[in-house]
Amino acid sequence: MTRDLTITEVRLTPILVADPPLLNTSGVHQPYTPRLIVEVVTADGTSGFGETYGDGKYLELARPLGEMLVGRQVSDLGGLFALADEVAVDRARVENQLDVGGQRGVQSADKLRLSVASGFEVACLDALGKALGLPVHALLGGKVRDAVEYSAYLFYKWADHPEGVTCEKDDWGAAVDPAGIVEQARKFKERYGFTSFKLKGGVFPPDEEIAAVRALAEAFPGHPLRLDPNGAWSVETSIKVADALGEVLEYLEDPTLGTRAMADVYVRTGVPLATNMCVTTFAEIKEAFTRNAVQVVLSDHHYWGGLRNTQQLAAICRTFGVGVSMHSNTHLGISLAAMTHVAATVPGLHHACDSHYPWQSEDVLTERLTFEGGRVAVSDAPGLGVEVDREKVEFLHRRWLEDDGSLRDRDDAAAMRVADPGWVPPAVPRW
Amino acid sequence: MTRDLTITEVRLTPILVADPPLLNTSGVHQPYTPRLIVEVVTADGTSGFGETYGDGKYLELARPLGEMLVGRQVSDLGGLFALADEVAVDRARVENQLDVGGQRGVQSADKLRLSVASGFEVACLDALGKALGLPVHALLGGKVRDAVEYSAYLFYKWADHPEGVTCEKDDWGAAVDPAGIVEQARKFKERYGFTSFKLKGGVFPPDEEIAAVRALAEAFPGHPLRLDPNGAWSVETSIKVADALGEVLEYLEDPTLGTRAMADVYVRTGVPLATNMCVTTFAEIKEAFTRNAVQVVLSDHHYWGGLRNTQQLAAICRTFGVGVSMHSNTHLGISLAAMTHVAATVPGLHHACDSHYPWQSEDVLTERLTFEGGRVAVSDAPGLGVEVDREKVEFLHRRWLEDDGSLRDRDDAAAMRVADPGWVPPAVPRW
Repeated sequence: MTRDLTITEVRLTPILVADPPLLNTSGVHQPYTPRLIVEVVTADGTSGFGETYGDGKYLELARPLGEMLVGRQVSDLGGLFALADEVAVDRARVENQLDVGGQRGVQSADKLRLSVASGFEVACLDALGKALGLPVHALLGGKVRDAVEYSAYLFYKWADHPEGVTCEKDDWGAAVDPAGIVEQARKFKERYGFTSFKLKGGVFPPDEEIAAVRALAEAFPGHPLRLDPNGAWSVETSIKVADALGEVLEYLEDPTLGTRAMADVYVRTGVPLATNMCVTTFAEIKEAFTRNAVQVVLSDHHYWGGLRNTQQLAAICRTFGVGVSMHSNTHLGISLAAMTHVAATVPGLHHACDSHYPWQSEDVLTERLTFEGGRVAVSDAPGLGVEVDREKVEFLHRRWLEDDGSLRDRDDAAAMRVADPGWVPPAVPRW
Repeated sequence: MTRDLTITEVRLTPILVADPPLLNTSGVHQPYTPRLIVEVVTADGTSGFGETYGDGKYLELARPLGEMLVGRQVSDLGGLFALADEVAVDRARVENQLDVGGQRGVQSADKLRLSVASGFEVACLDALGKALGLPVHALLGGKVRDAVEYSAYLFYKWADHPEGVTCEKDDWGAAVDPAGIVEQARKFKERYGFTSFKLKGGVFPPDEEIAAVRALAEAFPGHPLRLDPNGAWSVETSIKVADALGEVLEYLEDPTLGTRAMADVYVRTGVPLATNMCVTTFAEIKEAFTRNAVQVVLSDHHYWGGLRNTQQLAAICRTFGVGVSMHSNTHLGISLAAMTHVAATVPGLHHACDSHYPWQSEDVLTERLTFEGGRVAVSDAPGLGVEVDREKVEFLHRRWLEDDGSLRDRDDAAAMRVADPGWVPPAVPRW
């Protein structure tokens, strides 16, 4: 075994991918959303792929990091994160910045670095696995399950993006009331076999969202249900919703913002609280776990710093009796494969993971990943087990190149202003 | 890459290795101590080695686990630990058993399983690394340092084992008072370059051990010092020692037993407390960290369940602001190599690791590992980077075969009774 695993080239390709008009408390998804495709090439000609957020501030960091990686070993993941720490981050990029659309909790230079480094980590693991003939899950210590369960990610949505906006048409139709949400859930179940349902809330007044969840509970009795208003509610409103829905909810996700507020809601309702906003970094864990503010942490390997950090987060949660599952933002098949590999290695994954993947009509894979019975099979092929279609990457990259810059940074409020010129993201708590 | 990584054979070789007459609160080390050498062989002819505790209860578990592993992939570490969970453990082997000599904290079936599985995990990682051409640290995500610092592990000791006992002679001489300990420390520094010193205490009344540590502080000003009585003291005695030595101690190790008692000592003295008795399993972490009972956890990859679990423990410690370093029991070069690989990957290792290795005049390696400036260099050779000498293994195995059974289970109290027939391990707290 003398394969040369030196990284000889790093290719960074920003792309814009179609996104339906999905509503959240900040506004609406833009018709195209940025992602960054990371490719590392080793001396023996192996290519590995990763993806991460594609907004400008991630690109600015990815470029110097990519240059620094050339000449390093693709297996040197510890070195990758040490290098990322050396890349300067423009403070104005992270301080007092609203993470519009993303709803990904605290912004910091470290978190930005981790979000970028994770794209490289996945690419390195993919290349390493291909070079060694091992699936990524084996590089992570081996799978403990053969398939990973995902939940249907329900959104309030319009039938179409606003008139006059360039976009790709979707076939999901509108969903702006309980009947629309139930109909959407039925489609999700029919198409992908999902049996858990999560509704992105914080869009309509709480009573309407309570009614939507009740309608889901009636239509799908016994199915795990979740509601996630992205911190749009006060403690009192959160308690009201928890009391109204406690019997049918698997958990309530980020009803309100901050460790104290979350702990208040839990102690007064006993309804388990999940989060991808209150605990999004290792630095936030101690206080939140000590206060019993969260009962399920939704990991996102992008901003937690990759697949190995996700395993460590899971170990911490397991040790402290806190549940773990996965958060998702708009992502493509490379990240779904990465999520599936790491989730396959985590013992005690008792909640179906979130994924936006069904909402993405476009992908960079030659062959899309599929859900069967709500599950993605864990690939035993070398690396991530997916094949990237370079023509598709190029097509989506051209869209990015041709954009006038207005879509290169995700901005759900700006997208909403196309339909509602006076829109400003509501102050929190909104209700 | 189509190497066949299927495990085709598992060889388990119990051995007895020479051990000097080192004193601790339970008694004295026996002249020979049991270890188990684990070898996994893959279909392509690669052998990987691990070692772990060799007492009967570990052997009983290792044999069925070894048989179950044949036919599995050497990369399937998740599966290895799942298999270990299936091996039945005789409850009488773990319940209400004093872990004589070991001083390794709580005894449980799970911990016994982890201690055995860890020997296999290291063997699998060694084989996998050799097959793939990667050092074990690369399989663990990559080193973040090129050498790992160890501390001198000072012991009160007799010059020789009791008269008439078959044993190997050592050249360290006796150390039963402050001058003897200082002399031993000088030898450690001369031979290996160690600059941190740990004294195994709990042997003599606390005032004598305080005097020994003060003598070390005087002889080696500015060098980190530690004292470890294996929980032999009451809270009041611990506070007395901490007050007397607080200025010169890096930390006090397991002065007293139990989370509450440790927390008491810390809150009343502010002297950092390290442990390999209070926190020895993931299940013990939450209470201890919440109570601030320990400031440094001394991991031992044998009973924490291997190198990846050690990384997870380190991540938990880092997240909760608790220090991490490494515990050691009698071990040989395979385990020292394993400890060095995993320690090389752990960020923020601020305390030199413990190792008994200098006390072991016998080893199973063709070439012993060496300390330079108190450090062991991290090998970049495939696998653990050590070569096992089969003749040495066979020699030490014959000693095990020829033993009448009296040394096959470590028993420091029995060894002490040879010199002092009325000896019983003192009740705790001893002082």
